[in-house]
Amino acid sequence: MRSIKHGSTLAMSSPAAARLGGGRAASALERGLLRKMLGYLGNPAVGLRLWDGEALDPAAAELVRVHLLDPGTLLSLALDPEFQFGELYSSGRLEVEGDLVALLEALFAAQRKDRGIRSRLLHLIHAPRPNLPGMATANIQQHYDIGNDFYQLWLDPQLLYTCAYFSTPELGLEQAQVAKMEHVCRKLRLLPGERVVEAGCGWGALALYMAREHGASVQAYNLSREQIAHARRRASAEGLQDRVEFVEADYREIRGEYDAFVSIGMLEHVGSSHYSDLGQVIDRCLGQRGRGFIHAIGTDYASPLNPWIERRIFPGAYPPSLREMMAVFESAGLSVLDVENLRLHYARTLEHWLARFDAAAAQIEAMFGATFVRAWRLYLAGSLAAFRRGKLQLFQVLLHRGDDDQVPWTRAHLYDAAPWNPPKS
Amino acid sequence: MRSIKHGSTLAMSSPAAARLGGGRAASALERGLLRKMLGYLGNPAVGLRLWDGEALDPAAAELVRVHLLDPGTLLSLALDPEFQFGELYSSGRLEVEGDLVALLEALFAAQRKDRGIRSRLLHLIHAPRPNLPGMATANIQQHYDIGNDFYQLWLDPQLLYTCAYFSTPELGLEQAQVAKMEHVCRKLRLLPGERVVEAGCGWGALALYMAREHGASVQAYNLSREQIAHARRRASAEGLQDRVEFVEADYREIRGEYDAFVSIGMLEHVGSSHYSDLGQVIDRCLGQRGRGFIHAIGTDYASPLNPWIERRIFPGAYPPSLREMMAVFESAGLSVLDVENLRLHYARTLEHWLARFDAAAAQIEAMFGATFVRAWRLYLAGSLAAFRRGKLQLFQVLLHRGDDDQVPWTRAHLYDAAPWNPPKS
Repeated sequence: MRSIKHGSTLAMSSPAAARLGGGRAASALERGLLRKMLGYLGNPAVGLRLWDGEALDPAAAELVRVHLLDPGTLLSLALDPEFQFGELYSSGRLEVEGDLVALLEALFAAQRKDRGIRSRLLHLIHAPRPNLPGMATANIQQHYDIGNDFYQLWLDPQLLYTCAYFSTPELGLEQAQVAKMEHVCRKLRLLPGERVVEAGCGWGALALYMAREHGASVQAYNLSREQIAHARRRASAEGLQDRVEFVEADYREIRGEYDAFVSIGMLEHVGSSHYSDLGQVIDRCLGQRGRGFIHAIGTDYASPLNPWIERRIFPGAYPPSLREMMAVFESAGLSVLDVENLRLHYARTLEHWLARFDAAAAQIEAMFGATFVRAWRLYLAGSLAAFRRGKLQLFQVLLHRGDDDQVPWTRAHLYDAAPWNPPKS
Repeated sequence: MRSIKHGSTLAMSSPAAARLGGGRAASALERGLLRKMLGYLGNPAVGLRLWDGEALDPAAAELVRVHLLDPGTLLSLALDPEFQFGELYSSGRLEVEGDLVALLEALFAAQRKDRGIRSRLLHLIHAPRPNLPGMATANIQQHYDIGNDFYQLWLDPQLLYTCAYFSTPELGLEQAQVAKMEHVCRKLRLLPGERVVEAGCGWGALALYMAREHGASVQAYNLSREQIAHARRRASAEGLQDRVEFVEADYREIRGEYDAFVSIGMLEHVGSSHYSDLGQVIDRCLGQRGRGFIHAIGTDYASPLNPWIERRIFPGAYPPSLREMMAVFESAGLSVLDVENLRLHYARTLEHWLARFDAAAAQIEAMFGATFVRAWRLYLAGSLAAFRRGKLQLFQVLLHRGDDDQVPWTRAHLYDAAPWNPPKS
């Protein structure tokens, strides 16, 4: 699982470093700042190289080093490490010697659950952007409207940008994404002719799969114009435009009654202050026999998203703890039938994405420049490290009405070789 | 599923009723009180018969009636219906005409999520007893030390007093309890020689099963003296006394490190103010590869336990919402791998228990008197109605460390015909 290596490009070689840092040794004040910062970070097992070439290394089996290319980099990093690491890495003022994922894993491994008042203050300064109806669109478009061409370079051919399901770990990414869609449909016990609403449908792969493979009729909502346009083209090309309608709108605008509500990878963008909105939407969508399904990144304990990720990659995002996620359903009186944690599956998915991203790095750099490539590599590597170290989890939650007796007695149908058949009643 | 009928015994026939109520018609004040009470209860589809024989019936397909045998019964019931219904039914001052379970289902069906200030005030008056270490023992002994002879009359032969697992709904109670124990062991992926600690072990069936069928070595804790004595006798009789140690102590006294922590039907007795105690116990028990398992009655949304059940049947008990339950694990930084809701299974279990209890009612009345029989019938019928109507749910939660990579990729091993085999590493 840990075979991907990211050798540092070491683009800034010593002459450049010497120019920026003046080649002088670190002062006593700078050394003090470094010690403070390492203490704040839980003294991770990572080495440091200063601008003058001096290396400060802990005893560690597999050494990875952060190379600070000038004294200003040290100052920025020491004052606000969680935000500035991303800024400095993207801009090339900080290099990584050794495997980037290993470095980030070492940082996560050292991270304490509560890092005290300073961490809370910094997270206040970096408070995530709200997801009020007007702002949610901008938040979503910043990430998902970068361009379909870009995502086609490193996602699977159907463009599923959420955790795949490796029913066996050897599965390829493309197969594992299909296995994920089938796993979701089985959990929902989808029957031909049923009506499904999807909140946050990405490029439409699941909506089209439900219509094509399970005979469902689907309304799929999304705020990303680029994604919706792609999804509509695909529906027409496959002749599914009568069974799948793609709607460019916020989940709060969903109307009508459905047999199933499904949302894959949207809850992270909802923001905890809007959980009761989402609960109400699910509640009013579903009749007495309706099923709901939420697939989302979460955590074992509530903690803020890394502020650099929130600012540069996913504005307005917050992965909730499973307890916080339950508030969506509790507020609406929905009943949780099944929760499955797919953390290992997201780590595997990210290994595939990162390898494909790196393979396409030259093309991506030609499209968006070196800073973009470095920022996105850091985001993908950081996500991989977070799933490996358990800082992030992936929860699939199946919902229904608390007194619905039409649920299966066991979950064996999820693992049958044969497709799901409803019991004869 | 709804084939069990509880015909009212109608022991208090009209002459007795006439004697108590004086045979006079209800006054305007009494009728006003009745209307108020029915409004408070959400106007359930149940009929009422007054002491003078007058019937006040709603339009309902299958009529069940509450028969108030005297004006004092009406007064008590109207002032504090949720507590007094149990008191009056047990003592025979209130009779049920028709199926008791159907009546309770109708009451649950009408119940609103929030019944306002009056409900909150009444629940304040009936606040559950705390479970501080000294008091927990008394709370547990009031229920579980009634006598093993009593429980042997209506539980399965191995005395499992928690939800069974009907891998097919036709399974008998005894088989379904064995299926439950196997389901738990498979979720924990128990291997020969592993050390297990069980918190709240009842009469010891699961601890003995884990040792006998899976080669585990088990320490099992319980506060009930009668249960522990029975469990020790059974361990000796089966020659398992070297592999299963029964400890008469509170879960907070658990020490040592184990491969698995398991607790079936204890969380309901812990009380939400002690959830972090329980989380800490699980945390300190389990090493980096440890697994935890909690099986407990819960709810879809937080609401107080019926005060009569808390007073007369389960002192100090509280079934948490799934969100509240998650606080146990979040406080300890444990990761939830799997949640399964077995509501239908508990309804089925209670159907078996209630039928067996009723079959043994004459014997139980000879042991403890008629009031006891009526109180326990009401408790079992009320629990059945609550699970049928979704007022109670049963959650099985599997826990582990958030960065433990030794978890299986899927849950298919739970449904294999063959026993669980660890992957070769």
